[in-house]
Amino acid sequence: MPKSEQSLSVFRERIDEIDEQILDLLRERSEVVKGVLLTKIEKKLPIYVAGREANKIQSFREMAIKRDMDPDWAEDFLRMIMSSSRASQSASEFPSATASSKTVLIIGGGGGMGVQYSNLFSASGHQVRILDKNDWHRAEDLFRAVDLVIVSVPINLTQAVIRKAAPFMPDYAVLADFTSNKKDALRAMVDAHPGPVVGLHPMHGPDLQNLSKQLMIYSHGRDEDACTWVLNQFQLWGMRLLQVDPDRHDRVMHMVQGLRHFVALLHGSFMKDFDLKPEEILHFSSPIYRAELMMTGRIFAQDAELYADIVFANEERRQLLLQFMDHHSRLADMVRKGDKKAFVEEFENITGFFGEFAETALEESSYLINRLADRFA
Amino acid sequence: MPKSEQSLSVFRERIDEIDEQILDLLRERSEVVKGVLLTKIEKKLPIYVAGREANKIQSFREMAIKRDMDPDWAEDFLRMIMSSSRASQSASEFPSATASSKTVLIIGGGGGMGVQYSNLFSASGHQVRILDKNDWHRAEDLFRAVDLVIVSVPINLTQAVIRKAAPFMPDYAVLADFTSNKKDALRAMVDAHPGPVVGLHPMHGPDLQNLSKQLMIYSHGRDEDACTWVLNQFQLWGMRLLQVDPDRHDRVMHMVQGLRHFVALLHGSFMKDFDLKPEEILHFSSPIYRAELMMTGRIFAQDAELYADIVFANEERRQLLLQFMDHHSRLADMVRKGDKKAFVEEFENITGFFGEFAETALEESSYLINRLADRFA
Repeated sequence: MPKSEQSLSVFRERIDEIDEQILDLLRERSEVVKGVLLTKIEKKLPIYVAGREANKIQSFREMAIKRDMDPDWAEDFLRMIMSSSRASQSASEFPSATASSKTVLIIGGGGGMGVQYSNLFSASGHQVRILDKNDWHRAEDLFRAVDLVIVSVPINLTQAVIRKAAPFMPDYAVLADFTSNKKDALRAMVDAHPGPVVGLHPMHGPDLQNLSKQLMIYSHGRDEDACTWVLNQFQLWGMRLLQVDPDRHDRVMHMVQGLRHFVALLHGSFMKDFDLKPEEILHFSSPIYRAELMMTGRIFAQDAELYADIVFANEERRQLLLQFMDHHSRLADMVRKGDKKAFVEEFENITGFFGEFAETALEESSYLINRLADRFA
Repeated sequence: MPKSEQSLSVFRERIDEIDEQILDLLRERSEVVKGVLLTKIEKKLPIYVAGREANKIQSFREMAIKRDMDPDWAEDFLRMIMSSSRASQSASEFPSATASSKTVLIIGGGGGMGVQYSNLFSASGHQVRILDKNDWHRAEDLFRAVDLVIVSVPINLTQAVIRKAAPFMPDYAVLADFTSNKKDALRAMVDAHPGPVVGLHPMHGPDLQNLSKQLMIYSHGRDEDACTWVLNQFQLWGMRLLQVDPDRHDRVMHMVQGLRHFVALLHGSFMKDFDLKPEEILHFSSPIYRAELMMTGRIFAQDAELYADIVFANEERRQLLLQFMDHHSRLADMVRKGDKKAFVEEFENITGFFGEFAETALEESSYLINRLADRFA
């Protein structure tokens, strides 16, 4: 072994030892965190408390500064450790928001979201029933003495299912839905059911092991007090709650869901016509474009019908997409005329409109891009 | 203090102790890594070796499995530690690819990329000179006995600057450029300079502390042997090298750079006309859309002229953007007619075209989204 290799291998052995010790400490740490969790469940305390996490992060940053380490890096590092603790909570039991157990019926409970929520309600000690499209002949049994009915079906079926379900429900039961369009669904629920109504929109995908820190959007329909236990239950799972105005919510969703997925189709379809394979583009890509390509590509690993339902959700959304087409047509004029000055002017107007957000976005996306480069380059 | 708080605080104290120990170990680890680095510089060994890193990751995964920990998580964790070691190499010296020091002139060396590369050439023991737009009266001095000239100026000036610079260069010197369009720049260099020519396209931004693992794309113009030391130097900084065909490269770049930035303008401009502030959208967003919004927003924290130059780079690129407009117009027809079936059909064609990439993208972007949720939710 040449001398340089020899001195390198001494260093490398020491690195291996250190890594073993770090893993031992992480292992012990996760045991202690489990102790915290079990105590919280026993005492019916929420799994996630934002203020406490912020304090812990602040003190960890100070520990890092004392050791002359980069506190931003240390914060990322700690968040990564904490996210792993959250993921490992999935198998555990969760605290219950009510003194005695409730009966929850999930319509469309066989879908990804349905499965996720039925697991969590069960893990919190409630009785969960599932109604899928072939179960309507058993409706009378399934609806008997339910406390909460959640409609979790594709967006274009929601209103019909609400009208079908409501007559089976006891008046005291809470009716809720998981649709990403709140205005129409909320109106349908209030019209069909005389009892408590709350519109929900869980802002996360179906592939999560637990919902800690995830966002649940809600709009009250009728009898807020009777719905409180449901919202409390979400909070005990660690979710963040946000009350919204249904009109405003839907307007934003046209952009977030309708436009985004239409543009992804446009992008993918153009690549196809241009015969440019994503793998080939990746060879030439910086991490920034790689991130973008992954965000577009993920859509085409999913169900076409689901996205068609999202894009064609209602008339208002289709109108927005057509306005977007007109907008493109106007901006394409700059390109046709080679009008760089107009481009710069429009760019600067957007910069003004975005304001401080642009700086935040630069910082946050750089973080993302660096993670991606670490992980996949 | 109630009893539950008491037992929680015992757990929390133990967590703090463990965190202090982990930080101590990380501190020591970075000292040992510094030792490795200094040895490598002394022995002129490359900073980053892909095979060695892969071995280290594999053995770390095995250490995790032995402790009943998730090996994927452990791998992310290790990559995060290693990326921090790479970042801290920035202040260090780097190995030199040549026995005696070379003289490097960077035209446009005051820009972000110029500063970055001049720092690295200096840190590797080379003599670096900078020529900015007001320095042409000193050109004779600056070009005297140079070994390498790198043109790092805005894309629309590149060819003119190449023609201006070449007559000052000794015939033996290497002429290179950093433009994101390779075909035109390479032709201009070969025409203007009779000596060695290599076209370069660094696939990273100017805001990095070091270039380890970053991609450098290159195309040979003339006299490959005389250019070898330059490519070796990039490799010694830890960069990955990829040789490309200039035509194919440019075609991909129209998509990656031209189309991407035009679509970002379109998106931002539509949000502005729709009066939907990014901050408001964020309130309602899942981590997926958050990531997208950050990728769009980052553009508007940057220079409008720079992006205008990228979008209007040349006629070929403008033609592509107009084809994209036609394409949009065709797809918008589905929306106008409410033709969900056509949408599903086109979606499935894209799924077929994307093939296995879509699954990879779903996996990789889910990783990203989870990191983003950990960090910023």
